Amino acid sequence: MKITVLAGGIGAARFLAGLQRVVDPTSITAICNVSDDLTWHGLHVSPDIDSVLYTLAGEEGEHGWGVRGDTTVVLDELRALGGDAWFTIGDRDLATHLLRTARLLNGGTLTESTAALARARGVGVTVLPVTDDPHPTIIRTAEGDLSFQDYFVRRRAQGDVLGFDFPGADAARPAPGVLRAIGEADLVVIAPSNPFVSIGPLLLVPGVRQTLADAHARRVAVSPIVGGAAVKGPAADMLRSLGHEVSALAVASLYRGLVDLFVLDAVDEALLSEVRALGMDALAVDTMMTGDEGRERVARNVLAAAGFDADGLPA
Amino acid sequence: MKITVLAGGIGAARFLAGLQRVVDPTSITAICNVSDDLTWHGLHVSPDIDSVLYTLAGEEGEHGWGVRGDTTVVLDELRALGGDAWFTIGDRDLATHLLRTARLLNGGTLTESTAALARARGVGVTVLPVTDDPHPTIIRTAEGDLSFQDYFVRRRAQGDVLGFDFPGADAARPAPGVLRAIGEADLVVIAPSNPFVSIGPLLLVPGVRQTLADAHARRVAVSPIVGGAAVKGPAADMLRSLGHEVSALAVASLYRGLVDLFVLDAVDEALLSEVRALGMDALAVDTMMTGDEGRERVARNVLAAAGFDADGLPA
Repeated sequence: MKITVLAGGIGAARFLAGLQRVVDPTSITAICNVSDDLTWHGLHVSPDIDSVLYTLAGEEGEHGWGVRGDTTVVLDELRALGGDAWFTIGDRDLATHLLRTARLLNGGTLTESTAALARARGVGVTVLPVTDDPHPTIIRTAEGDLSFQDYFVRRRAQGDVLGFDFPGADAARPAPGVLRAIGEADLVVIAPSNPFVSIGPLLLVPGVRQTLADAHARRVAVSPIVGGAAVKGPAADMLRSLGHEVSALAVASLYRGLVDLFVLDAVDEALLSEVRALGMDALAVDTMMTGDEGRERVARNVLAAAGFDADGLPA
Repeated sequence: MKITVLAGGIGAARFLAGLQRVVDPTSITAICNVSDDLTWHGLHVSPDIDSVLYTLAGEEGEHGWGVRGDTTVVLDELRALGGDAWFTIGDRDLATHLLRTARLLNGGTLTESTAALARARGVGVTVLPVTDDPHPTIIRTAEGDLSFQDYFVRRRAQGDVLGFDFPGADAARPAPGVLRAIGEADLVVIAPSNPFVSIGPLLLVPGVRQTLADAHARRVAVSPIVGGAAVKGPAADMLRSLGHEVSALAVASLYRGLVDLFVLDAVDEALLSEVRALGMDALAVDTMMTGDEGRERVARNVLAAAGFDADGLPA
């Protein structure tokens, strides 16, 4: 069985961590959002890729980013010297960005640097950036256009989002292996990630949406909205300010035509018939990924909902 | 009194640290070599500027580079991940390179980033890069051409040096303030730095040598060679492999026409008449800069030898 997961940051990372406890990690490919990548003091930082790598390596930080127990000697010194220190990067985390940047400057691609980092951390899952090309998210707000991290970290995702702009989308080429991983998978999972700024930009990379629409795989999305709130991040606020209802149903409607099955949390069971009315199957299961056991349970629940058992056989 | 010091790394840094104990730091300008600058994992590192800044701030590392008592969390992680870790950069040191790089990427110059770092560390001496342009040293060896740090750090300055190449020299423009600092000084000191790879490239920046040759200042060089050996670094090996005698006299001969006075160490007193035969004054004083007191003593000795007292009055 081949499983491909379309992934944002921490929600996807936790789902993937559960999945690799249930199936052979080498059967899993994660296609990661890069539209919140940033250049930090000259270094290329890929927050979603790093959340996925650190989490799969069992080293994720307490808050879902960075390396667990990391120190901040560099950042403290940067702040003491009057530098911009609003984006928190720990010391061990920094080594990741240095390695990536060095590789990119030596002519390597983001795909290659990601593979090297995965190898170095003993990650068995194939982790791919959706594209090796620049493909940033611009957040349109009443105060003007902001880069994703300026909005999300510096301004703590405050203020209404009026829309999004993806100026690199048309020119972004899918990274090597991305379309194949979608086209040849037995199961594609859209992770419980933000539909606007994590999954949205993935689908905008030319070829990705169409390949998913045409895929022979069983296609499943897991709701990032549980009980009318986002488990993590600004998805709920974005839904609200963009005029959507804050619910798993609103997310499901965004994935119409792209998934066969929408998995929502048991607390949202009442929405099942409305989701089905969108033209997709729907199932309610426990989707809360608390602890290793919770992550594993969610992975098992999603696999079962999709009709597979842990050996990849149709259940 | 205005004093301008042509500076390499640690020898110059220690001399400057002594000098600022004797005269008003704001009367001192250090013009720093940048030909051993390197790009390290995407970050702009200026080892000589940093040695000068850290030393003037009283924070220099035990070996003459980096920040005293610095940790190496980032470098250890980089090594653990299989990255290139032969160039030792500590955590607090790294913050310097991040700040410099961010400023350069934002359109700032090396002059501006150096001034900002000096301010942040409370350094009163004006520290200038000799040029804001790329001006690297290439070391010609039997094994081929090497970048300076590849030769000096990675290969520990092993192997005979056949010569030097400065491919950026002709296009390098003196940084703002450099020619004026030489032209308007009352005293110019060529610090006890390597004549080939520290002072040499400074003098190759168009306008610098001529401005020094024409300067109205009293011009003094301090020998980096004491008793036939370099106090620090590869100067002695370079003199030998390039066919020079390893002596203060050989260094003096390289500065003919550029200095009025050559200061050598008391142990080399026997060379005084030969140095004078090159057409410059010569004086033997204690030049060993051990501890704060040693640095201060050398600064006083050089000032006195040049004919100034600590108030800048002709003694």
